[in-house]
This record gives sequence, structure tokens and C-alpha cells, in this order.
Amino acid sequence: MQQSIASKNYDVIAIGRACIDLNAVEYNRPMEETLTFSKYVGGSPANIAIGSAKLGLKAGFIGKIPDDQHGRFIRKFMGDAGVDTSRMVVDQEGHKAGLAFTEIKSPEECSILMYREGAADLYLRPEEVDEDYIRQAKALLVSGTALAQSPSREAVFQAIAYAKRHEVEIIFELDYRGYTWKSLQETSIYYSLVAEQAQVIIGTRDEFDMMDSCKGDNEHTVRHLFNHQARLIVIKHGVDGSYAYTKTGEIYRGKAYRSKVLKTFGAGDSYASAFLYALMTGKDIQTALQYGSASAAIVVSKHSSSEAMPTVSEIEALIAAQAGLSG
Amino acid sequence: MQQSIASKNYDVIAIGRACIDLNAVEYNRPMEETLTFSKYVGGSPANIAIGSAKLGLKAGFIGKIPDDQHGRFIRKFMGDAGVDTSRMVVDQEGHKAGLAFTEIKSPEECSILMYREGAADLYLRPEEVDEDYIRQAKALLVSGTALAQSPSREAVFQAIAYAKRHEVEIIFELDYRGYTWKSLQETSIYYSLVAEQAQVIIGTRDEFDMMDSCKGDNEHTVRHLFNHQARLIVIKHGVDGSYAYTKTGEIYRGKAYRSKVLKTFGAGDSYASAFLYALMTGKDIQTALQYGSASAAIVVSKHSSSEAMPTVSEIEALIAAQAGLSG
Amino acid sequence: MQQSIASKNYDVIAIGRACIDLNAVEYNRPMEETLTFSKYVGGSPANIAIGSAKLGLKAGFIGKIPDDQHGRFIRKFMGDAGVDTSRMVVDQEGHKAGLAFTEIKSPEECSILMYREGAADLYLRPEEVDEDYIRQAKALLVSGTALAQSPSREAVFQAIAYAKRHEVEIIFELDYRGYTWKSLQETSIYYSLVAEQAQVIIGTRDEFDMMDSCKGDNEHTVRHLFNHQARLIVIKHGVDGSYAYTKTGEIYRGKAYRSKVLKTFGAGDSYASAFLYALMTGKDIQTALQYGSASAAIVVSKHSSSEAMPTVSEIEALIAAQAGLSG
Amino acid sequence: MQQSIASKNYDVIAIGRACIDLNAVEYNRPMEETLTFSKYVGGSPANIAIGSAKLGLKAGFIGKIPDDQHGRFIRKFMGDAGVDTSRMVVDQEGHKAGLAFTEIKSPEECSILMYREGAADLYLRPEEVDEDYIRQAKALLVSGTALAQSPSREAVFQAIAYAKRHEVEIIFELDYRGYTWKSLQETSIYYSLVAEQAQVIIGTRDEFDMMDSCKGDNEHTVRHLFNHQARLIVIKHGVDGSYAYTKTGEIYRGKAYRSKVLKTFGAGDSYASAFLYALMTGKDIQTALQYGSASAAIVVSKHSSSEAMPTVSEIEALIAAQAGLSG
Repeated sequence: MQQSIASKNYDVIAIGRACIDLNAVEYNRPMEETLTFSKYVGGSPANIAIGSAKLGLKAGFIGKIPDDQHGRFIRKFMGDAGVDTSRMVVDQEGHKAGLAFTEIKSPEECSILMYREGAADLYLRPEEVDEDYIRQAKALLVSGTALAQSPSREAVFQAIAYAKRHEVEIIFELDYRGYTWKSLQETSIYYSLVAEQAQVIIGTRDEFDMMDSCKGDNEHTVRHLFNHQARLIVIKHGVDGSYAYTKTGEIYRGKAYRSKVLKTFGAGDSYASAFLYALMTGKDIQTALQYGSASAAIVVSKHSSSEAMPTVSEIEALIAAQAGLSG
Repeated sequence: MQQSIASKNYDVIAIGRACIDLNAVEYNRPMEETLTFSKYVGGSPANIAIGSAKLGLKAGFIGKIPDDQHGRFIRKFMGDAGVDTSRMVVDQEGHKAGLAFTEIKSPEECSILMYREGAADLYLRPEEVDEDYIRQAKALLVSGTALAQSPSREAVFQAIAYAKRHEVEIIFELDYRGYTWKSLQETSIYYSLVAEQAQVIIGTRDEFDMMDSCKGDNEHTVRHLFNHQARLIVIKHGVDGSYAYTKTGEIYRGKAYRSKVLKTFGAGDSYASAFLYALMTGKDIQTALQYGSASAAIVVSKHSSSEAMPTVSEIEALIAAQAGLSG
Repeated sequence: MQQSIASKNYDVIAIGRACIDLNAVEYNRPMEETLTFSKYVGGSPANIAIGSAKLGLKAGFIGKIPDDQHGRFIRKFMGDAGVDTSRMVVDQEGHKAGLAFTEIKSPEECSILMYREGAADLYLRPEEVDEDYIRQAKALLVSGTALAQSPSREAVFQAIAYAKRHEVEIIFELDYRGYTWKSLQETSIYYSLVAEQAQVIIGTRDEFDMMDSCKGDNEHTVRHLFNHQARLIVIKHGVDGSYAYTKTGEIYRGKAYRSKVLKTFGAGDSYASAFLYALMTGKDIQTALQYGSASAAIVVSKHSSSEAMPTVSEIEALIAAQAGLSG
Repeated sequence: MQQSIASKNYDVIAIGRACIDLNAVEYNRPMEETLTFSKYVGGSPANIAIGSAKLGLKAGFIGKIPDDQHGRFIRKFMGDAGVDTSRMVVDQEGHKAGLAFTEIKSPEECSILMYREGAADLYLRPEEVDEDYIRQAKALLVSGTALAQSPSREAVFQAIAYAKRHEVEIIFELDYRGYTWKSLQETSIYYSLVAEQAQVIIGTRDEFDMMDSCKGDNEHTVRHLFNHQARLIVIKHGVDGSYAYTKTGEIYRGKAYRSKVLKTFGAGDSYASAFLYALMTGKDIQTALQYGSASAAIVVSKHSSSEAMPTVSEIEALIAAQAGLSG
């Protein structure tokens, strides 16, 4: 993907939040009646890094974790999953890990009670981003949520500046979380500033609609972004599957796989990690879309997001099992 | 205790925080290795209100809870325990319940990972305190932690002004939690302003030492406070027992009861609720000290603070069982 | 006034704000049409300290000034006026001097455009208040505005605690400035906490009404405060003159003197400084009221507040000149 | 400059701050000894709009002013100078006008005491920027200081997005004011994001060095920016004159004119307005540089920045007068 691949130690380095998920142990009920919670690592870019590493990519992570038991748990779990955590910065100002208490009333009715006020990940500062580390990556994966507040926002712009300087491809996972943002207009402004600098952009149709310049149908969206730096755009339409557009004009459609859904959390992160794995290992775009969908189908049937990230053989087994079925 | 006791609908109304405790299910290990947590209601004044109600007192609560699943759980649990929750205010600004993840490495090594940033209880405003409600109480129990930040601090001063206007006795439970305060000097200032207006003051020796004017030995402390409004002062010395001083010059000593300690959390709250119960039901001060100590001994042997609050018969059974033993 | 007057180096030490007034040079017009402003020292407690020193009292000042040209101007002007400025603290965090642009449309229509956001005086911290300095004063003059925000609020409570410890009389000048406060309820709470600890309380009828516990007529106000620490209360009724009440039951009335009014600013500060001067030099209360009124009448006829503070002979000349006239 | 010039009602619309300058009336001394100040409109983009309008351009202004006497003065002064003020937004949250007290110790020693905390201009919100207004302009002039804080920062990005959508040329005046920014790295990040979208960029050598990507010599700076959207770059070197670089490869040098310097304030703003005037009226770049330098030479000899903005004939007279002299 880059000129000097030989010198690249990482397939992908993700930047953004690594948090704690507290998933209801007793589910199919309102959270008020849940009395026990299981602890997992969470946060979209952390999940993607974990999922990518589990599939075999060399993954690194840039983010800020608290100086407490939750922070140490996050670092250990990610390291054990194969992610390089050497550039995770330990907060020194008393910030805490973001928390997500998940409520699973039914497969269709899931909600999250978020603790994001003063979350350590949003306090990553631009001077804590290591230029030399980014230089060693084939791709930098930016999570949209990291743009929601300063100084994390500036840390991301700094990482992007380094990526451009060293010709590291920029992958933008829109990952919109409304509760973290001050206003829709602010989201539109910063999403556009990043999307117009990225080579690969992945999101749901709703997420692309957050950007004033991309609002509308897929054709309008990709026309705008291909006028900037994009070379590959993936737009997900939920159960209707996903579409990939290339700057050279191809369009691919990936179908959604059937699954026994337990909860909907983690679908996007598992999709992204498997899609990136396929791309990075030289598979064609059509196959990459199938990998993404299959990975998502596996994770939504399980209790966690990070721990449930599938292996390559699990993904390929699902694809094979549903190969004869109509999409 | 008051002139017009006939018109009093509540023995005690507590003001301050009601939060969520997340207690390690797998304990005797560092929290990094704990993967499951049990949810309980927590927070010193909430625990005291629950404990008092369980013992048979008519208890009410003034505080602010979030408009989410945790807030609704808190209100329901406290209501089910017999506490009047009609004056608990639902936050409308997105604040969350305070959280306490407890780590139980051993009975001697317990620590708490607190989430107090933007906690809803600290956003109770003075105009949300109901004068007529306080008028109906025999006593107002003030938790020191509620003084740590504005506007909760002003809400407490407002409640105290109402209590004085209607001759409601003020009980000050020092309940010092360092992480909530900006500086030791601020703690000293606000603790003194409340302690000098209270009739009953309860705390550990360390907590009394937070106040510049009370620092030193018990004799100095009580001399200062009896020059103001105090009539009864309880100073706790941990395993060495506790002392009660009256304005009329009596001194009582309460011994600590033996217990199979699981964790130390909740000892102070269970002490306060049983001590108040005994006082309010006309028992003598010596007996009240024993009730407090016995209640604390029971709670430290159990997994939660709020759920474990003992009944009168449990307390009396423990007192009887250890009656023949030296203190 | 105190036991050990011999050891007292200061008649009065004021605590609170010292700011910059920018008074319209071209007046009798809206400020939009004023193109030139004259710079003076301003701020109620600074003016009172300056006025007292000019009359011959030994005055000191506790406050925080910016580390800039305005801060150095304030310190030099006050020092030149005879005020001890050795305990004025220089801000190290970039806060600026409060500013008051005065608009003089007519003697009846004066308004002020305030710059109080981030004003240095409100950042005085409790640990910056020197116990030994307060110990050397006969009286501590507290300005109500200093209670409006933290940490200045806590610095005042700290100063009061020191004053009580060393039997220094507390004089509370209510000095209410609405723009500095968050809410009326907060004002009521903190004003009451200080008023109930002060020996001398001075304010307008409207200012006493800021306190829920003092709202109403003068009789109700003084009854409440004499139940606490007050010994002397002065309530000003504008052109209808002022009243002084003593704990021992005397009531005095001071008439307002006639004046060629240029603007109304500074009347209260000049009143307070002359009243205190008279009290401190052993004049009777009736005379002190006259001194206050005469001093106010002189200042409202001049362009500034601080520079215009009168001398004893100017005050006595005005009293003599209007002696034969009806009040 | 644009396709549909016929429909353009404004030559230039500036976005950013309009403030109050308070210039020392008694100068050649430290400000501590200055007792009188003259009031003027100030702020770089306001000065440029005023200067442009005075020279004959159709100029508009987007900014936020306080709802007070200073705000009304600013709007009236700018309107009287010929600037369209219909899109200046009146703040409704109590923010004040930024203030700049100027100290003129000598022509070489000028400093400014700034009041920028809570300045109204920094509270312009993106939804207060009118797309249709920007559509009517030939050029949008962005002042770098407006990027220093949210939400003004987002308002500028919104204005830039509108300008790009309607093919309005973006002129970026770097206008760096250190006291407004949190860190050098933040400045570098946001300056680069705007500079890479602008067609015309004007600043001092020091200001270009604020951007990591532009740091170094002029050749490096212009090479980087011409790889993005720039077509014309002006780099000022103080008394050594200024350089203009075009994307097509031309380099022009403008000499500095001699002047009897009273103070250095306002030089950059008067330079920019005259340079833009010359460009907009079809003069060649060499002439535009001379206009800028001559305008700057005039303003530094006068007491104010905004009021002193010269007319075309004053500029041309100075150029003619010094035509025969060596640069």
C-alpha cells in the first residue's frame, strides 16, 4: 500500500479511546433489574485493534488510560490480545476510564448508559503522539469519537499531520457517538475536516449524513469525497448490507449474514477489523466486504465485543456455511 | 427532642449523596483481576437513611439522582427499604450517579475506585430543598461530603437554615472523602461552619482533625464545639472504640465488637444509623454507642453496605453474644 | 474596642477587591459617546481603606492584584494614600484587574459597565491570608462582594476564623453587586453566614433584604442579628438618611446632607470610611452617622471615588455649614 | 477573481474579532503613569474591514459583539466607516468586548495589556454564520486569532466550508496573538488546517513559523502551501520589507517606507487593507505591496489604528514622496 513497506512494523495503528464495558450478566430485562455486570475492554478503536490483532495483523494503539485498576486492566488485556500498547499514555491528572453499562432488553432493544465526563481518552494531547511510531505504520485508523473534544481532537489532527508527512494511509472510521458531542454542527465540521484528508472512509449511511457536505445519497457522498483524498469508501446500510466505492469507479455490494442476535453492540467494530484484515492481506474488495459482514454476524451473537472478536477460521466457516443462501 | 414532636412525620431526614456501589464479586485479589461486579445502592447518607429505616425509624432523603437506569434503581431500592424518596430530585442536565468500584484484596486492604466527576448528587441546588419537608423532621442529618462542591454545598446550607428556623436538630456526620475536595483548607472551613451550627456531631478522630479549630485531642475538640451549638459529640477511634461527650459533662466509652471482617466499607454508616436509632427511641447514650458498634461489626462481615444493614434483633443478638467478653 | 489594644498595629484591615475605575471624562451623555476615560483605583473595600487612611486611621488591605501595569498602579496608589499594602498578593495565573467603566448620563442616571470575569481579586486563596496580620488589627472589614466566588469566598471565611480566634472585631459591609453572583439564594446563604458572625454590619435596606433571615423591616432585621454576634447595625435608607441600632437598644438616626450631585458612585464607601473613623476615634454613634453622611455628600459631588475621599476638616466643614438646616 | 462577479455585493467579508482599544493619552511613559485613555475600535479583522471600506472597497463583517455600550459603539463606528454590520451578532450571554490597553513607552517599546477572558468575539457560533451572506462576497478574510477558541474556531471552519461551496476566495491573515492560545502546538494545527484551504495567505515570517509544516525559509513555506490551495502568499520581514510569491512562480519584493513612528500597533492591519484594496481593484502585485507598506507607514505615525486608516490619496502621496529614495 505504501512505497517503503519493508520498514513498516505495523499494519495499522489505531488512535482514540480504550474504555471499560460493563455488560449486564442478567439480560433480557431493563438495567434497573440487572444486579451483576461483567467487565470487558471496550471502545471502537480499541475493539478494532484487538480484532485486527486476533486476525493476525500487526496492530498498535495510541490513547490515554487512567492511572488506576481499570487502566491497568485495559493495557494488559490489549497487550495479551497482541496489540502493541507501548504508546498508550497513562493519565496523570486523575481522569477515569470511560464506562459503558450495557442494557440488553431484547436483541432489538439495546441501550448504553455511558460515563464519558472527564474520560481519560479525551485528554490525549498532541504532544503525546509519537511521530516516529506513526511513521512505522502502513495505516492510521482514526475513530470519529476522538474528535469530539479537546485536546483529543488536536491529538488526532497531529497524528493525521504525521501520517501525511510520512505517507501513512489514513483510515477514518466515523464511529459517531452523540453523547460525546456538543452539537451536530461541530460534528459536521470536524468529520469533514478529517474525511477530506482520509484515503479510506468507513461508516453507516447515518454517519455519513452527519457531514453537511456528504448528506444525501451514496452517489453524492462519494463524489464529494473522491474530489479530496479518498480512494475507497464503505457505506453500511444495516440489514440491507454494505457498499464499497472506489475512486476508479467500481461499486461492490456486501450482503449481511444471518445470526442469532444477542445484542447489537460491537457489530461495527468487528466489521471494520475483519474488512481491514482482508484488505491488508491482499484480498479483493468483494471478499473484504464479506469478511466484515461475517465478523459482525459472529460478534452480535455473543456477550462481549472485545473478547468475542472472531478468528479467521470462524469467519471463513460462517461464510462457507451461508454461501449457498441468498443475501 | 423538639417541642412539637406530635407534628413530626420523620425521625430523620438525610441530605447528600445516593450512589451506586459496584462490589467485586471475585475478591481477595486486585481489582484488575476482578471480572464481575455486584450493584448496590451506596453513599453514606443514603446508607444511613436505609439503615435507620430498616431499624424502624421514619426516614426521608433529600438528594439528586440521575435520569437514567441507575437513578431509578436507587430510588426504588431506597423506597423498598422504607425511606421516603418523595423529595429526591431527578437531574435534568445529564449528570450521572456517582460510582464506587470496591476492591477487596484482603480484610485489611480495601480500596475504592471512585467516579465522582459530574456526579448528580453534587448538583442539588438550594432552591430544590423543600422547607416544609425539613420542618416535618425531628432531625436533619448532614453528610460532610455534600459540602465538597457547589451547588450541593449551598443546598446543605439552605437545609441547615430551614432546620434552624423550625428548630429541627442538626446532626453532622463528618463523612470525609478526600477525592471530592479541592483542598484541606476548604474542608476545614466548611466543616467548621457546619459543625458550629450542629447539635450532634459524629466522626472519627481523623475527621475531627480536618477542622483547624478542632484539631488535637478529644478534650480540645469538644470544648470548642460546646462553645457553639453542640450538645452531643461522638468521636470514633477505630478498634479502640468510640467516645460520646455531652454538653453537660458526661463521657461515655463504647467498645468495638469482634467480627469476621470481609471488608471495612460501610462500618461508619451502619454505626451512625444504629446509634441514631437508639437515641431516637429513647435509649441511653451508653446503649446507643453499643448499638452503633454492633451494627458496624455486622456490616463489615458482609458483602454490601446498604443491603447488609442489620435489624434490631441482629444487633441485640450480637450484643448479647459478646456481652460477657472484655472490650 | 479590644482587650489588648496596645499590641494592635492597625485600626482596620479590609479584605476584598481593589480594582480599576475608568470614569467617563465627557459625561452627561451615554457611554457610547464617551471617547476618553480617567483611571482611578476602585472597589468598595479598597475605597474604604483609602478613605480611612486619609482620615488618619491605620489601615491595611488583604487582596489579590494582577501582575501587570494595573496591579502595580493599584498598589502604588493605595500605598501613597497611606494604606499598608504588604499583604496584597500578586496573582501568578494571568488574572486581570476588575474594571468598572462608569457612565454618567445625569446625576440620576449612572450606570457601570463591569469587567469581573476572571478578576484577580476573586482568586485570593485562604492560604494567602496571614493569620498574624489579622491578629494585629482592631477590626477586620469584610466586603460582601468577596463572598461571591471561590476561592475568594473561602479566603474571607478563613480571615473571619482568624479574626474570631484573636478577638478581632468583624465589620461586614454588605456591598452587594448583583453581576458577581450566581443566584439570589447563594447571596442570601453566604451573607447570612457572615452576618451571623459579625459584630458590626453596615448596608442599605435593600442589601439587608438580600438575606432571607433579615428580609422585612428594620426591627425584624436587627432582632435576628442581635440574636447572633452583632452589637451595632447600620441600615441606610438613601435620601431618607440612615439608622444605627445597638444591641443595648439605642436607635440613632442620621440625616442625609445636601450636595451638588455629579454621580452616585462611591457614596457607600465614603460613608463607611468616615463612619468607621468616627467610631474608632471614640466619637459617639450619632456623630459617626453624621460623619458618614457628610463624607458621602462630598464624594458624590466629585469625579472619582478613591481620589475624592475627604479629609476630616472637609467633613467637619460640611457638617458645620449645614448645621442650621433641617435634615 | 470569481466566475459570477456580477452577483457579488461585497469585495471582502472579514470574520473575527471587533474589540475596544484604550490608547494611552499621555504616552512615552509606563502605563502605570498613564491616567487617561482614548477609546477606539480595534481588532485585526475589524481594522482591515474599516481600512478597506475607507479605501473604497465594499466590506462586510461577521462577528459577535456584547450587548452593552462598548458593543453599540463598535457597531456604530464600523457602520459609519462604511462597513456592512448587518451580520454582526449581539451576544446574549453576558460576554464583554475584548479590550486592549496600549502602553507606549517609546516608538520601540510598545506593549499591550489585553482583556480577552470571556471576550464576546470568541463566542461566535457556527450556526450564527450566514451562508447566503458569504455567497455574496468575492473574498472571505479569516483572522487567525478567531481560531484560538471554541466556538469561534468552529464558526470560522463553517464560514470556510460555505466559502468553498460558493467559490469565494479565502484570504488568511495569520494575525497571531499568543495570549489567546493554549499552546503552540494547537496554533500550528489549526493554522495549518486553514492555510491549506486558503488561496491567499498573509503574515510575518514569525507567523508562518508558527506552523510546523511551514517553518523554515520562505522557499520551503511557499512550496508546501502551493501544494495545497494557495495562489498568492505574502511574507512580511518587518523593516526589511515584504515578499509576495505566486503559484505561477513570480516573486515580488516590497520595500518598507520611512515614517515618524509613534507606535507599532496597527501596522499589519493597515498593510493588509491597502494590499487587498490594490489587488481587488486590479493593480499589479508589485503595486499592491507598495500600497500595503505605505499604508502601514502612515498608521504607525498616528495615535489610533482604526481611525487612522488612510485614504487612497494619502497612500499615493506617500508613495510619490518617497519614490526617488532608495528602499
